[in-house]
Amino acid sequence: MRVLIAFDKFKHALDAPGACAAAARGVRARYPKAICDECPLSDGGEGFANLLTRASHGLLFTRLVAGPLGNVVRASYGLVSVASVPPRVRARIEPPASPWRDSDHVAVVEMAAASGLALVPAGDRDPLRSSSAGTGELLRAVARPDVVAILLGVGGSATSDLGLGALTEVGYKFHDAAGGRVIPLPQNWSRITRITGSAPPQMPPVFIACDVVNPLCGPNGAAAVYGPQKGLALAAVPRVDAEAARLARMVCEYRQLHPDLPKKPGAGAAGGIAFGLMAGLGAQLLPGAELVGDWFELAQRIQAADVVLTGEGSFDGSSLAGKGPGAVVVAGRAAGKPVHVFAGRFGLPQTAWMHPVTPANLSLDEALSRTAQLIERAVAETCLSAM
Amino acid sequence: MRVLIAFDKFKHALDAPGACAAAARGVRARYPKAICDECPLSDGGEGFANLLTRASHGLLFTRLVAGPLGNVVRASYGLVSVASVPPRVRARIEPPASPWRDSDHVAVVEMAAASGLALVPAGDRDPLRSSSAGTGELLRAVARPDVVAILLGVGGSATSDLGLGALTEVGYKFHDAAGGRVIPLPQNWSRITRITGSAPPQMPPVFIACDVVNPLCGPNGAAAVYGPQKGLALAAVPRVDAEAARLARMVCEYRQLHPDLPKKPGAGAAGGIAFGLMAGLGAQLLPGAELVGDWFELAQRIQAADVVLTGEGSFDGSSLAGKGPGAVVVAGRAAGKPVHVFAGRFGLPQTAWMHPVTPANLSLDEALSRTAQLIERAVAETCLSAM
Repeated sequence: MRVLIAFDKFKHALDAPGACAAAARGVRARYPKAICDECPLSDGGEGFANLLTRASHGLLFTRLVAGPLGNVVRASYGLVSVASVPPRVRARIEPPASPWRDSDHVAVVEMAAASGLALVPAGDRDPLRSSSAGTGELLRAVARPDVVAILLGVGGSATSDLGLGALTEVGYKFHDAAGGRVIPLPQNWSRITRITGSAPPQMPPVFIACDVVNPLCGPNGAAAVYGPQKGLALAAVPRVDAEAARLARMVCEYRQLHPDLPKKPGAGAAGGIAFGLMAGLGAQLLPGAELVGDWFELAQRIQAADVVLTGEGSFDGSSLAGKGPGAVVVAGRAAGKPVHVFAGRFGLPQTAWMHPVTPANLSLDEALSRTAQLIERAVAETCLSAM
Repeated sequence: MRVLIAFDKFKHALDAPGACAAAARGVRARYPKAICDECPLSDGGEGFANLLTRASHGLLFTRLVAGPLGNVVRASYGLVSVASVPPRVRARIEPPASPWRDSDHVAVVEMAAASGLALVPAGDRDPLRSSSAGTGELLRAVARPDVVAILLGVGGSATSDLGLGALTEVGYKFHDAAGGRVIPLPQNWSRITRITGSAPPQMPPVFIACDVVNPLCGPNGAAAVYGPQKGLALAAVPRVDAEAARLARMVCEYRQLHPDLPKKPGAGAAGGIAFGLMAGLGAQLLPGAELVGDWFELAQRIQAADVVLTGEGSFDGSSLAGKGPGAVVVAGRAAGKPVHVFAGRFGLPQTAWMHPVTPANLSLDEALSRTAQLIERAVAETCLSAM
């Protein structure tokens, strides 16, 4: 029996490789000879660079960069040989007719590693003072002749700065009326009246893996929808949103781009860095879950499996809309395979293929500290009855 | 049946991966179900960086550097995750108690890629004007915080400059009596009276894979033994040898090293770059064939094989002294496995396990142009009769 084990992380409790390993132990407890194909998933946030790089025999590199609040953080990125990039992804990011060589690489960069919410203690979270500059430092670090494309995952960000911090690291400058430099934190935005500079010509093409479809501004914009969960006071949302709209106009004018770019679905991703990098670096948005699935060759692995197991901390309606474990469910069923989902919490009516890993009598704290064990047990029990 | 196919290159005709692939085709022609474990070997020369890097899931990087005569060449080096370096090699190069991390790498650098004889057209070969500076550029390129050790293969070099060219690239300067800078080509050596500068403190430890035991100077020295095959006129040997001895003394005095360092076995390797890097960078010599064998985990792969095939262009007594295919023969027999050697030319009395791939009636030119086909046929015929 071949079992595909494609879990995403259980937030605050267990990373995706840990969840997969726990589930594999659960399978083997019942079927010692089962072949477990462990495929830890990534939603573009924490773990994105590490998982994608490892999956394609790449190398991890580490740099000290500015964290969201300017403190120094250790951020990793990956380089993967173009030849090792799965074909379906290569087809999306390959510049036409490029003569691929042995030493051409794709860089895998993760915004969460440099500008992630998890890097900021809960009490200090404040998008008004948070910058994506560290992500820009990573982009600059991989802008080398051997890098033919940059793949950027933007989940889990702490910032709502339109990516202007990142743009300062690749050559843009923001000025006040007197011509002085302004650090483009949202708290300083009102002082910005002019932009200068540009990205270096040798910047490789940037592709942003992104599933959100929010525009940059308005009621569905970055500040309104994602600001509060990053620590933005609700009272500050209207001001930040208005200033974001003003700056976005300024950026579009400076770069001579269509004024509707901020309305593009996804422009509001990750505090608007999607907009900033589209405008400043010509970055392109790619559907994140699909891209990650292609990177991990999920379709082939589902096809090769007899049973498919997936899971994440909280599984709800939005999961089924096409992200991570939800996409595994959809693809697994389409391929006619038995699929089982394991989650700490289910946010939709439960059916036979949904398996809560948390016993009803367990406190949340206890559940979080024993997640691996709970997953292992739930999988083993499911194996006994349902497969 | 599991067949280990460990060929080195057939010089001027076929690289090691090509030779292994040809032999594998020969095996499969007779035994379609045989499992062929292809293990292309390296003698530290051309192909060293590529083969070692690929064997350990590393990445190749390319740089434009100065070739032996100062022209620009495209040289590749590899980075390999420390975790992927085979344990026996790691044990040799691991600095004690270093906290290995995800993003620690070993750099694999090949002198032949930057300063190789094959980069110089036959008519232009001249050690008096040839520099190892390009190798120094590669060493400088990999002197980065993530590189914890540099492994340097020095086979196939075009130079006889004591590695002084490489040392200029990592911080040393050579001066004439008037204090002016001298490019330390052998033709300029007589003008050098003083050394200044030093290597940067962040230079990672350098390990040189090297099998020759020649000292730097004298009748067994670099100039006398290897100079002529690199294009050095015999008449120039005594002068170059004497100047090399003088400069080596100067280097040892400047670096406050024991004056016998030039006599150390191996100091004369690759035009004396072994001496130069030992003196200037504290490089250490490692037995090359053994190190490469450990890198490829040859012992384990021989153990797992039912039959062992090896080969190279020319196989003679020196091969059996412990290099490449010779070492495979010795280890294969020690493990009690049937071993077959395939070569274009055998320089020792032939026995049943030696198989010439070149039919007697074939011209050398023809043999060189059809090497792959000849290897495939010889292996297929051997399979029929002997295994």
